[in-house]
Amino acid sequence: MPRIPYDRMYNEFSRVLLKYGCTEDRADLCARLFAETSRDGVYSHGLNRFPAFIQGIKDGYIDIHAGPARFGNSGIMERWDGNLGPGNLNAWYSMERAVELAKTHGLGGVALRNTNHWMRGGSYGWQAAEAGVIGLCWTNTIPNLPPWGGKDARLGNNPFVIGIPRAEGHVVIDMAMSQFSYGKLESYRLNEKQLPVAGGYDRQGEFTKDPAAIEQTGRVLPIGYWKGSGLALVLDMVVSLLSEGDASYQIGEKGEEYGISQIFLALALPDAEGGNKQVNAILNFLKQAEIASAEDEVFYPGEQTLRRRAENLEKGIPADSEYWDQVLAL
Amino acid sequence: MPRIPYDRMYNEFSRVLLKYGCTEDRADLCARLFAETSRDGVYSHGLNRFPAFIQGIKDGYIDIHAGPARFGNSGIMERWDGNLGPGNLNAWYSMERAVELAKTHGLGGVALRNTNHWMRGGSYGWQAAEAGVIGLCWTNTIPNLPPWGGKDARLGNNPFVIGIPRAEGHVVIDMAMSQFSYGKLESYRLNEKQLPVAGGYDRQGEFTKDPAAIEQTGRVLPIGYWKGSGLALVLDMVVSLLSEGDASYQIGEKGEEYGISQIFLALALPDAEGGNKQVNAILNFLKQAEIASAEDEVFYPGEQTLRRRAENLEKGIPADSEYWDQVLAL
Repeated sequence: MPRIPYDRMYNEFSRVLLKYGCTEDRADLCARLFAETSRDGVYSHGLNRFPAFIQGIKDGYIDIHAGPARFGNSGIMERWDGNLGPGNLNAWYSMERAVELAKTHGLGGVALRNTNHWMRGGSYGWQAAEAGVIGLCWTNTIPNLPPWGGKDARLGNNPFVIGIPRAEGHVVIDMAMSQFSYGKLESYRLNEKQLPVAGGYDRQGEFTKDPAAIEQTGRVLPIGYWKGSGLALVLDMVVSLLSEGDASYQIGEKGEEYGISQIFLALALPDAEGGNKQVNAILNFLKQAEIASAEDEVFYPGEQTLRRRAENLEKGIPADSEYWDQVLAL
Repeated sequence: MPRIPYDRMYNEFSRVLLKYGCTEDRADLCARLFAETSRDGVYSHGLNRFPAFIQGIKDGYIDIHAGPARFGNSGIMERWDGNLGPGNLNAWYSMERAVELAKTHGLGGVALRNTNHWMRGGSYGWQAAEAGVIGLCWTNTIPNLPPWGGKDARLGNNPFVIGIPRAEGHVVIDMAMSQFSYGKLESYRLNEKQLPVAGGYDRQGEFTKDPAAIEQTGRVLPIGYWKGSGLALVLDMVVSLLSEGDASYQIGEKGEEYGISQIFLALALPDAEGGNKQVNAILNFLKQAEIASAEDEVFYPGEQTLRRRAENLEKGIPADSEYWDQVLAL
């Protein structure tokens, strides 16, 4: 796979966004968010998603010119309408506002409705951590996850993100409520690999590690079985109630995933320096774990991101030619 | 198993608490929280835990007279010290304060340090929902969960709770980051049953459904494997940083689980009536799921609690004689 320097990838994204009518500052931020996502190794939501993002603009699901507008608030819990603008820009501005509120009030929240796919959710955890506060955010999605005990998709996989500031590299968890995404299943199938653990059901209704068998049934497993199933449901309720926006079942009625709901919470740290020491002490205790086997390693969330970021900045970002060529042709 | 009427159980708890020096209003609330936990079917953290709770008072880990005191705040994110008071009382007062802040400011938070085991975490989700707001809270614990890739306990199972108001019965999720608690493993072993899904590792390092084999290794699984492992770590960081209290590794150093850290967030609803309609519409969509097999049913979090509550209020609360006799003798 060819490797593309970060700046080159960023410039291409920016060029296309400007061509589609984006203003310069918005094109800059949007291109940066896409390029950083690939730089950090989340190719599925960076370069590989960019052509579909542009297609969404052409199809009218994404309004390249639109930005979020506040339509209500209860004190420092604000409600914003995303006006179907680009999901990563809307999410970025919402977390920025939550951080601003937290810096004044200790705590701040933005509930966002009528927005679009935020691409890599972790971006907004990194954003909050970079601003020196704890960030907590999640989104709903189109129904793509069967509930525990059920066969058909009645839940979103509703990715959940927490970012924690750390001078030596932030700690950021970004996890969907399904054990594996459909993109991950496809990637295992194309590489002719079995999943490391059961990721869903086969046609006989048995757990399986075979990605193709799960793709056939569509019966992916929630994390922790009944636990992730319940959590996905509740996360959908929270974003929908607080933003007065669509829940997963309403997104499903549209057929395409647009006009979704999200929440962004920011929490100020009482003692940044002491906090950094404590985070490192927690990681130090974790890292002293007795390793399960010679092939194992204990990671903290965000650790592998930093490794991949450094490697991709040095060597260039691995770019699937199929998608890269599409971007060049846009 | 004998069934004890709710009022009888409550009165016994209250009698013992008064005998140990609790003031009347605190004895009332503490006894109610214990009795409601058993009433709702969480016997392990209700009646069955009460004798150990009293032992904690005798041993000096729990100060029956102590209550939480605010020692700092960043705006509406407050920091309270639990002064090693009874964990369920400290948690209740903290959520009460978060709800109060949310009713004024839309959003409110209390970070609590130096507290004790809160018994059933779900209690504070029900509490927030009953007050008409969304409640979000979690706690850290002594290290009791090996991280993904590791063998020894380096993480707490850090239960996580969300409560959502609903006129027809609140929606409350209360989930630890381990797939099964040690109490659950014991109960399966005593009933000579296998777990419904793999809950940890046996001595050969293989996944197993055998509760006794997992008890031998102590290698319980986090929910969603690497996902729950990462989330447990991050949840510990958040409570420790915001409360300036002990993280799991520090609780482990004490040998006994006391002086733990928690967070309570409350979020006001913009539209209670519209919200209730939306929650019911979400549940309605969930309940239309095609059932996986004739033995399956799709539940929402809190649904089975309501069923058990009604049954236990009607027939009396099933009481393990071993624990009930201990309470009578206190």
